Amino acid sequence: MTQPLDVVALIGSLRRDSLTKRLVFGLIEVAPRSMHIEIVPLAELSMYNEDLEDQPPPSWIDLRARIQCAAAVLIATPEYNRSVPAVLKNALDVGSRPYGKNVWAGKPAAVVSASPGAMGAFGANHHLRQALTYLDMPTMQQPEAYIGGVDKMVDENGHFIKDSARQFCTTVMDEFERWILRFVNRPAP
Amino acid sequence: MTQPLDVVALIGSLRRDSLTKRLVFGLIEVAPRSMHIEIVPLAELSMYNEDLEDQPPPSWIDLRARIQCAAAVLIATPEYNRSVPAVLKNALDVGSRPYGKNVWAGKPAAVVSASPGAMGAFGANHHLRQALTYLDMPTMQQPEAYIGGVDKMVDENGHFIKDSARQFCTTVMDEFERWILRFVNRPAP
Repeated sequence: MTQPLDVVALIGSLRRDSLTKRLVFGLIEVAPRSMHIEIVPLAELSMYNEDLEDQPPPSWIDLRARIQCAAAVLIATPEYNRSVPAVLKNALDVGSRPYGKNVWAGKPAAVVSASPGAMGAFGANHHLRQALTYLDMPTMQQPEAYIGGVDKMVDENGHFIKDSARQFCTTVMDEFERWILRFVNRPAP
Repeated sequence: MTQPLDVVALIGSLRRDSLTKRLVFGLIEVAPRSMHIEIVPLAELSMYNEDLEDQPPPSWIDLRARIQCAAAVLIATPEYNRSVPAVLKNALDVGSRPYGKNVWAGKPAAVVSASPGAMGAFGANHHLRQALTYLDMPTMQQPEAYIGGVDKMVDENGHFIKDSARQFCTTVMDEFERWILRFVNRPAP
């Protein structure tokens, strides 16, 4: 049997009952069996400050090591003031440093943004994509996932309430698997 | 004598010898006498998490109170991975919450972005502007300030080395004063 694809999930909200986190549980539920998705906690990640690079905080060392060995990265984000929540941007910044040691480079990525409103956190999704370009993360382009009305799509246990949402998210994760396999050196399933 | 204009400066880098901080010292040096500019430290600001709103961390309370009584906001930012440093985005997010209590609303703002390279942190500058739109901060449009080669413009004490840089930054601050006065209810100087 082939090794599962080790996919790291980053969530842009620290709230315990975060809707974005619910959605990630849903995405995990519908993901292809080849993928093993692990949510990496970001609550304790120290804010980036280059002065600390001589003795990096343990939280930086842990994140960098975890990303280094991951096959791919799933980023799920709400929108804060039409842009990326700081907790997510900080994770990207910490993993990108010190200069020349960007752990994100080459990791295939998918961005899923979500909001209770109609726009599905489009602003956060695309601000993220500008950073991912610089970080050299090959990012799945289609299907785009701007999940509006997320509070009516997944329940508090992360199960899909709406069939259409389940179907769309299944497609997203199937395509993400195909995308990852373009970059991971292994036989196709 | 009229009260000075109480301007808060936010700096997007925590590094002790930050080039952006140097530039802010330079901007303070050339600012009109009417402006009193205070750098608000952001290093200890807790990461935003809505769950904490019942008992907000003291660092949130302090920031919100300080912005509330400020006349205007000067934002100086480097670029991290073609976008805004998390420390700055977190400050904006903290000040924008809880819902309905956005302390930034109506505060006139200027964005100055800086980098040692040629592009002057354009990416960070404009990602910031997208958030400032939502936060309802009337933001000075011209002159735009994308300060490239900042390491050769200000010395380690925040004094301008280049006359052209001093002149440009003087214009920026003069225009910022005029901009602020459009929104502050007081006689023109």
